[in-house]
Amino acid sequence: MIQGNALIIQSGGPTAVINQSLAGIMQAAQSYPEISRALGAYHGLHGLLYENLLDLSAEDENSWLEVANSPGAALGSARIKPKPSDLERIFAVLTAHNIKFLFYIGGNDSAEAAQLIRAAANERNFDIRILHVPKTIDNDLMVTDHCPGYGSVAKVVSHIVAGDDLDNRSFYNSIKLNVVMGRHAGWVAAATALAKKGHIDVAQHDELGPHLIYLPELEFSAERFIHDVQKTYDRLSRATIVVAEGIADQLGGNFIDDKDEFGNPLLSSSGKLGDYLVSLIKKNINYKTDLGKLRCRADTFGYLQRSLVGMASPIDQQEAFRVGAMAVHYMMRGETDKTVCLTRISNQPYKVTTTLCDLTLVAQKTKLMPRSMINSDGNGVTDEFYQYALPLVGHLPELRALKTPKLTQALGPYTRLD
Amino acid sequence: MIQGNALIIQSGGPTAVINQSLAGIMQAAQSYPEISRALGAYHGLHGLLYENLLDLSAEDENSWLEVANSPGAALGSARIKPKPSDLERIFAVLTAHNIKFLFYIGGNDSAEAAQLIRAAANERNFDIRILHVPKTIDNDLMVTDHCPGYGSVAKVVSHIVAGDDLDNRSFYNSIKLNVVMGRHAGWVAAATALAKKGHIDVAQHDELGPHLIYLPELEFSAERFIHDVQKTYDRLSRATIVVAEGIADQLGGNFIDDKDEFGNPLLSSSGKLGDYLVSLIKKNINYKTDLGKLRCRADTFGYLQRSLVGMASPIDQQEAFRVGAMAVHYMMRGETDKTVCLTRISNQPYKVTTTLCDLTLVAQKTKLMPRSMINSDGNGVTDEFYQYALPLVGHLPELRALKTPKLTQALGPYTRLD
Repeated sequence: MIQGNALIIQSGGPTAVINQSLAGIMQAAQSYPEISRALGAYHGLHGLLYENLLDLSAEDENSWLEVANSPGAALGSARIKPKPSDLERIFAVLTAHNIKFLFYIGGNDSAEAAQLIRAAANERNFDIRILHVPKTIDNDLMVTDHCPGYGSVAKVVSHIVAGDDLDNRSFYNSIKLNVVMGRHAGWVAAATALAKKGHIDVAQHDELGPHLIYLPELEFSAERFIHDVQKTYDRLSRATIVVAEGIADQLGGNFIDDKDEFGNPLLSSSGKLGDYLVSLIKKNINYKTDLGKLRCRADTFGYLQRSLVGMASPIDQQEAFRVGAMAVHYMMRGETDKTVCLTRISNQPYKVTTTLCDLTLVAQKTKLMPRSMINSDGNGVTDEFYQYALPLVGHLPELRALKTPKLTQALGPYTRLD
Repeated sequence: MIQGNALIIQSGGPTAVINQSLAGIMQAAQSYPEISRALGAYHGLHGLLYENLLDLSAEDENSWLEVANSPGAALGSARIKPKPSDLERIFAVLTAHNIKFLFYIGGNDSAEAAQLIRAAANERNFDIRILHVPKTIDNDLMVTDHCPGYGSVAKVVSHIVAGDDLDNRSFYNSIKLNVVMGRHAGWVAAATALAKKGHIDVAQHDELGPHLIYLPELEFSAERFIHDVQKTYDRLSRATIVVAEGIADQLGGNFIDDKDEFGNPLLSSSGKLGDYLVSLIKKNINYKTDLGKLRCRADTFGYLQRSLVGMASPIDQQEAFRVGAMAVHYMMRGETDKTVCLTRISNQPYKVTTTLCDLTLVAQKTKLMPRSMINSDGNGVTDEFYQYALPLVGHLPELRALKTPKLTQALGPYTRLD
């Protein structure tokens, strides 16, 4: 029987539920005598390289519930990958601390890192089991039905956009644009469509936003964008628009000023894309001048999308815990070099099971939204997407927009003096 | 006995609870036979000028709970004030629809508009009662202890910053800056300090953010800012910073590109202040190069602060409903030309009553944070502020940051190759 310490790594951008997976691993690990101690890498691969390891087994059992409910990576994260020159050191640290079980919580970059460590272990005949525990708000991992972290970000952005659309609806002549996370895949942007489903009065769904959603899966055309916005504005005298930050790439990459070690552009907290689209709207939209000056604003939601306290999806929390715990159970049955996946069994009632797939199917790959989940105009989602995403966010708010009849006018029209 | 229709106006920026006040007015109005019908002005003063009035008495009783829980101004809002040339028209519409009771839900601009209508009514011997129902996320109205709308925005920004600080804590060498609403008064920025109070482990409060908060009440000095950030960074290798958008004015007003009819600059959705402060930090902070490149990001929260669905403070919801209902009860006792105020009776247990004050004490005036609520360094809040604000946001989340001991290192230091 293999026996030794377990090492847990959290990597990449945190999610609202990344610590649920950590807590799931911790809880399950305690039932297996093969695992002597559970260690944490302090700040991801940094912790492994610089031998900054945390003794998680020393933590008070009572802490884990609150840690699990806290966003951010409790162990500290990092955005670096193992260089060939790092490998000797990695195995020196693994050896020094008798690490036989490695749990890598992260996205497709983490799966790649896990693969690199596996290949190096094989060269060294180093006996270690490695499982990848999926985590990403981007929802862009292959094989798994969806990624832990996505349900919560979907809940956050749908609640924000539901409120923002009602805020926008308060004003005449108002176009509001929201930039959400999503470099290559539009899953997060698409989730804002769930905002409509919080409205009780289904007859109003067509009037309520988001009215237009632009995804990185399709080529962004400024002309089509203006055409779409004009059409919505002509119908409603307003518009609520969502764009994924990734469409910036298609605009010539002008908005990208910084990259991480994996070569990913850092778009999440730049307001440049929003500012550009606002200028596009102000220049090109023919607005109703009798309603006054056109109001056009853009917000870029930024990091709060993945870390908003009190807004995690309960089902996402449970699933993130579950994939962590199952990683331990699978590994103790001898599994290694795989990703733990969620496989959907049925939608009504919503049921998933966990399965495993080879790391090679996940590492460095990106799952885009299928065309069948995007509407034919390329500016919204289909019912297939709603069926897919609704079970992941939990309870939606019960909202209602007032639709009282207007009184008959007794006076003539009024023209306001300048 | 005065008898006629009531008109309700919602004005200015919406809040998460502005419709609670509307629902409070509607519910109370039904008990008074003096009020024949309750009408709504469609889009604030626009509705009054263009005679776009809603017959709110025709609305299904069952709708109000959900409308009250929905953000945005359900009647539609506007940001215009009555011009002298508008007054004839206003009284023509009031006469045509037999309006004897006017409820103006809004901030200090709305109190001013209510005053202008009162003065014009007096000139015309027009019999109308007018009460101002306070509403503003800015919390900057005189006399009232706090403003309906503030508790909810305080809850939103404190939850965002609590999560964002944990997200930032996940990374080495990371400075995160958040720009929140607040042109003249720092109440919203100050509320982000409540983020600390969600953490169960009080011993960690000094390590957790927000570490620095900058308020418009004090002059902003770039030098002191850099000094403060450097000090926090030296201690923690990171920093979470909050600034009120209003400090932009003190930086020369470079960030202001647009104004409304009251002359208020429109800062809320510009990323320029954040971008400027990031560049200031990148240029001036001496960071620990052994930790890699300094990570510095800014987010501007924008309109979601005032409209986030599912994040309203329960006490704020109740109080907003209450000031609406009390406006009706006061008016039916003959009161007019006043603002309904919340007066705090005690803090433990938290108790408030409603009172009235003259419109003149509120119109066009701004209540800033008292110096005693701001710390001596001018970069945070005092315990007096915590005592003031904590009862307004309701339950705080129970968060915990992991503080596991590090394992003793077995190997020597490691230097990563480029």
